[in-house]
Amino acid sequence: MIKKTDLLAIGHTALDSIVLVKEFPSPNSSTLIKQIKNFDGGAAANVAVVASALGLKSALVSAVGDEFKASNYHNKLKTMGVDTEDMIVIENEKTPMAWVFTDSNNDQISYFYWGAAAYFKESEPPERAIKKATAVHLATGDPCFNRRSGEVASEFQKLISFDPGQDLHMYSPEKLKSVIKVCNILFGNHYEIDRILKTLNMDITELRSIGPEIIVKTYGKDGSMIYADKKIKIDSILRTPVDPTGAGDSYRAAFLNAYLNDKDLEYCGKFASAVSSFIVEAEGCQTNVPDYNMTIERMKEKWDE
Amino acid sequence: MIKKTDLLAIGHTALDSIVLVKEFPSPNSSTLIKQIKNFDGGAAANVAVVASALGLKSALVSAVGDEFKASNYHNKLKTMGVDTEDMIVIENEKTPMAWVFTDSNNDQISYFYWGAAAYFKESEPPERAIKKATAVHLATGDPCFNRRSGEVASEFQKLISFDPGQDLHMYSPEKLKSVIKVCNILFGNHYEIDRILKTLNMDITELRSIGPEIIVKTYGKDGSMIYADKKIKIDSILRTPVDPTGAGDSYRAAFLNAYLNDKDLEYCGKFASAVSSFIVEAEGCQTNVPDYNMTIERMKEKWDE
Repeated sequence: MIKKTDLLAIGHTALDSIVLVKEFPSPNSSTLIKQIKNFDGGAAANVAVVASALGLKSALVSAVGDEFKASNYHNKLKTMGVDTEDMIVIENEKTPMAWVFTDSNNDQISYFYWGAAAYFKESEPPERAIKKATAVHLATGDPCFNRRSGEVASEFQKLISFDPGQDLHMYSPEKLKSVIKVCNILFGNHYEIDRILKTLNMDITELRSIGPEIIVKTYGKDGSMIYADKKIKIDSILRTPVDPTGAGDSYRAAFLNAYLNDKDLEYCGKFASAVSSFIVEAEGCQTNVPDYNMTIERMKEKWDE
Repeated sequence: MIKKTDLLAIGHTALDSIVLVKEFPSPNSSTLIKQIKNFDGGAAANVAVVASALGLKSALVSAVGDEFKASNYHNKLKTMGVDTEDMIVIENEKTPMAWVFTDSNNDQISYFYWGAAAYFKESEPPERAIKKATAVHLATGDPCFNRRSGEVASEFQKLISFDPGQDLHMYSPEKLKSVIKVCNILFGNHYEIDRILKTLNMDITELRSIGPEIIVKTYGKDGSMIYADKKIKIDSILRTPVDPTGAGDSYRAAFLNAYLNDKDLEYCGKFASAVSSFIVEAEGCQTNVPDYNMTIERMKEKWDE
């Protein structure tokens, strides 16, 4: 018997390292590392983890290295009930990594290691995983793989959400348009949505007319705006920010959770704001993830409903 | 029954990562990593591994993280017969790491993570390991720990060699002098030996008179000079250099191997040159390590003896 899933997240699973140094060395010199902290990350995995914590049956398709199977990260995903059956495991490759070096001025430089994710583009879209799912979320990942996965998901009439995120620059205008055409919900921060509009030379109304009936634009601590048949402004729930990384992914996971539970769009946005307010309170993208009840409580505190 | 060892190496065991990038990002930007290669390293471990490959019974005392015990690196050491019984294992800490980033101009920047090695200074000198050993080599590591270990080794009248290496700047003149006083053989590259002479305001003869009867100064591809009752120049054996890292450590291990086998100093130097010529032929400090017969063959090729 095939177990159905609510939400399939497609895109990166990655290992994030936050490295504190006193200063960035100039070429041909060296510096001491003060602290290294490792976190589980990757946009698709962040979405799957938060969705699962909120009560959805989630699945994850990423390209990972062969060391991933026996890793603590994989164990955590399984323990949380994330279906990893269709992960793409690349022999003799490493799981993608992101190293963020921060100096004592809080300036940052980042190094990304693509690793196993380089094999996304030659991989088949995960048809089995897509068929099992009610909704498919295309997160930061390989543009070609996302496009092909979007086409398969569209063929099987799945609810499709899309968040190109920081990889937006990797999409040609045609590729971008073809994924946007098949999606029902488009997510992006305000820079990204504005860039999409500029790239495609459209306004929000035109963009909605070619595909996504819902466009969600996030503004960090300034909340979010939902563009649908009406325009809905959602406040953020301000908490002392420790690390904003992953807040956006958690917003998307929470929004989809509420949406799949047939909530109205305003409720979806508020629920998503509540979830992301937990994520900014701790370092890492998958730290301090709330469950459904914690989220509802924080929503009530803010909106008294 | 206590198993005797020939050579105890004290100092760093470390994990080396060589990271290739197109360019070093400026603050608040990012770059893609083209390749990551991980190597076993750390000066003391390099010495123990090469000594063991050449036939000595070697032992290693380093401060490592609690993940080290189950690591492939540790398995390799055990398989090679390196005695790791007296390693200092620090709970909730990581094994020291060195990350060397190389850009497409072959410029390098290095990041060092001290990790478990920060606990060297509060650790007791490894008396049991020292007592079991014929010779004790003090490699790059913590100056205080090296000094205290040197004192214990001296008390038990062990043959002591010392190579402060790139950590030379961490030694105060007093600390430096006190370790040099107890050592029998002082190793350094020409920059380091010259810096020692300058710091202590001595010439080679004076330096020898306060402690080390043998001083070995290495010049990379230009060979080495042994200062003892006479001065002996040793040529290097030139091979196509791939990566010079670890060549110096292998020279020291090989020199000590020959010395402990009662060879004369010229033989010790030639044997050491032969060994280090293998190490430069491959990436990493513990790659392409020759055994005794391979070394003898290469010595014969060069010096026809």
